[in-house]
Amino acid sequence: MSAAPGATLRRLRERRPLVHQITNYVVMNETANATLALGALPVMAHAREEVEEMAGLASALVLNIGTLSPSWVEAMLLAGRAASERGIPVVLDPVGAGATRYRTETARRILQEVRVTVLRGNAGEVATLVGAEAEVRGVESIAAGLEPHELAREAAQRLGLVASVTGPVDHVSDGERSLAVANGHSLLAAVTGTGCIASALTGCFLAAKADAPLEAAAEALAALGVAAEDAAGGAAGPGTFHARLYDALAGLAPDTLDERARISER
Amino acid sequence: MSAAPGATLRRLRERRPLVHQITNYVVMNETANATLALGALPVMAHAREEVEEMAGLASALVLNIGTLSPSWVEAMLLAGRAASERGIPVVLDPVGAGATRYRTETARRILQEVRVTVLRGNAGEVATLVGAEAEVRGVESIAAGLEPHELAREAAQRLGLVASVTGPVDHVSDGERSLAVANGHSLLAAVTGTGCIASALTGCFLAAKADAPLEAAAEALAALGVAAEDAAGGAAGPGTFHARLYDALAGLAPDTLDERARISER
Amino acid sequence: MSAAPGATLRRLRERRPLVHQITNYVVMNETANATLALGALPVMAHAREEVEEMAGLASALVLNIGTLSPSWVEAMLLAGRAASERGIPVVLDPVGAGATRYRTETARRILQEVRVTVLRGNAGEVATLVGAEAEVRGVESIAAGLEPHELAREAAQRLGLVASVTGPVDHVSDGERSLAVANGHSLLAAVTGTGCIASALTGCFLAAKADAPLEAAAEALAALGVAAEDAAGGAAGPGTFHARLYDALAGLAPDTLDERARISER
Repeated sequence: MSAAPGATLRRLRERRPLVHQITNYVVMNETANATLALGALPVMAHAREEVEEMAGLASALVLNIGTLSPSWVEAMLLAGRAASERGIPVVLDPVGAGATRYRTETARRILQEVRVTVLRGNAGEVATLVGAEAEVRGVESIAAGLEPHELAREAAQRLGLVASVTGPVDHVSDGERSLAVANGHSLLAAVTGTGCIASALTGCFLAAKADAPLEAAAEALAALGVAAEDAAGGAAGPGTFHARLYDALAGLAPDTLDERARISER
Repeated sequence: MSAAPGATLRRLRERRPLVHQITNYVVMNETANATLALGALPVMAHAREEVEEMAGLASALVLNIGTLSPSWVEAMLLAGRAASERGIPVVLDPVGAGATRYRTETARRILQEVRVTVLRGNAGEVATLVGAEAEVRGVESIAAGLEPHELAREAAQRLGLVASVTGPVDHVSDGERSLAVANGHSLLAAVTGTGCIASALTGCFLAAKADAPLEAAAEALAALGVAAEDAAGGAAGPGTFHARLYDALAGLAPDTLDERARISER
Repeated sequence: MSAAPGATLRRLRERRPLVHQITNYVVMNETANATLALGALPVMAHAREEVEEMAGLASALVLNIGTLSPSWVEAMLLAGRAASERGIPVVLDPVGAGATRYRTETARRILQEVRVTVLRGNAGEVATLVGAEAEVRGVESIAAGLEPHELAREAAQRLGLVASVTGPVDHVSDGERSLAVANGHSLLAAVTGTGCIASALTGCFLAAKADAPLEAAAEALAALGVAAEDAAGGAAGPGTFHARLYDALAGLAPDTLDERARISER
């Protein structure tokens, strides 16, 4: 199957899939608004009392450990297992893995206990999870040793999932095939939570293309990247860029996405 | 008493009432900013250790179950009972009632244990709480069977409160009289938390007009609706609309509100 | 040492220090974005399991009690003690101290158990903590009795720290020397969390100038104030001002900051 982001976006807007997100306090509003702007329906729910039921209603589940604590981790595991059992695709965003033991161990535990479909992180986070060397400062990090496209392939093979390593160029791999996505804008790095938005949109695209997670993950990054390119035009800085990013996601036409997506097989 | 939104808004800005909000993580910043932009003072506090004291300082209390968990539910009940005892008006926003048993049961429990002044929800949520049929997907829902104005009246009668059912046209009823509010803009549905903002502003208007909750609830929706109409002019999408919504709330003149509010007795 | 905000800002952008923030739910996104826009790296982490390790990685720690609860207070104490032991500067923002006993007692407890470098609050909050009379409504407050510059000096002397009392004119004192900062714009008061942003930026400036906390605290307020002045130009209200504030922080040139900072010895 090849990437066809416009068709996936069109299907997503017809179906309006529900995307359940158990994510961090910092970005909840942002990932909900990005999900809504793209055309899907976000729902945030984290109580043990309801996460399994909510995950069962959803077409994708996004787990993000950006501000984790024990009861949230437990909820992520419950929701993740419920989704796994029902074949609902799961995205894991291991925010800050490598920065503290708690984050690294939690990300590893989720990878063990949940059938994660796509792991979406930056190079340092993903490198930490495959045991490669990484330099992590807080939630910012860079991987040492491996090139990002090698890292994505390695992570996909070792962890048995689609690895989506974002950076100036994004690299997505299922261990056999790899796609590079060359859309985006430097202002994305000036706004907190744009990585988390990438993970949320990955969940949206998976919900509309569950049978092709490699392509869905790449298409989501292309959609965010093209929207960021549009938002940057005329933005005076990160604040107005941020507001315009939702405009651009909402206004993103499927045909435009097909024309401008820079997804290439590697 | 008849609706006089401009006079209520003028009084609100003179008094600057404190509005205590126990709300969800997704929209806390948004409801606080909307409260402040309108002219009241928001305070967020959810610890058992302080909610009763904080509720006692406030002129209205807003309870919102959008991201509930047991300790938050307990805090809502404590604050709600404290407000009830002191005659402080309480708004309940039953976000996602009907989507999971936990949300439905929590909303019902608050309705039983707290003297709720205004129930502000969408048609599916309110229908769930009066036992009518509803189709709920996550926190989005539609009611089946009853027309929205009938639903508002039915909910008001059965639950003994003012029911405020928002949608393309809003319907507010105390069980005897009903008001329809025909302000607003479709972009409100493209931004997460605008329903929660409607509930927060309902709390603000109640704080300034506690003796007429039917009118206060309708006036709040008219104020948000007129502000949304203003914000939509010149907005390129949901992101810039969202930023402009606070500008419009802050710039909303009482006379303009009186002129443009489309509140009608049904 | 005298204030030299431009040089500090330049150093901050070269070093990109990590600033660990344990703050309230309402403003997490906002303080993270302000930190990032200024040029430092924010990290939010609040679990007992990781706060000491995370604080140890950071160049400054910001504690903010805006939406406190017992487990968060415990995390603040753990992180604060870890930072104290390693000589990492700590900022305390006692949001709402004076409004409820729980907030007042928690702020006092942090002051006792943690070596707080800078206490950044409004006049009512700081007055509460030095036992002066204050009128507090929710998280808004005014001090009675003492002029703000006297209050800052008094708080610094009694509590043994740098007191940073913000208002129309800000007053920062270490008990001996005092600086007044006359930058800013009235729209700052129309957006929730701008006080919290002031505390976060104080952490950023301390991270780049740990040996001169009096100057660092005043410089941070000047930087926010100048950015607010820039953001207000062309803003139609609090919503667009808010978005433009991040643009202005990101675009703030060190030379411009030196020219326009209105920091004076009192």
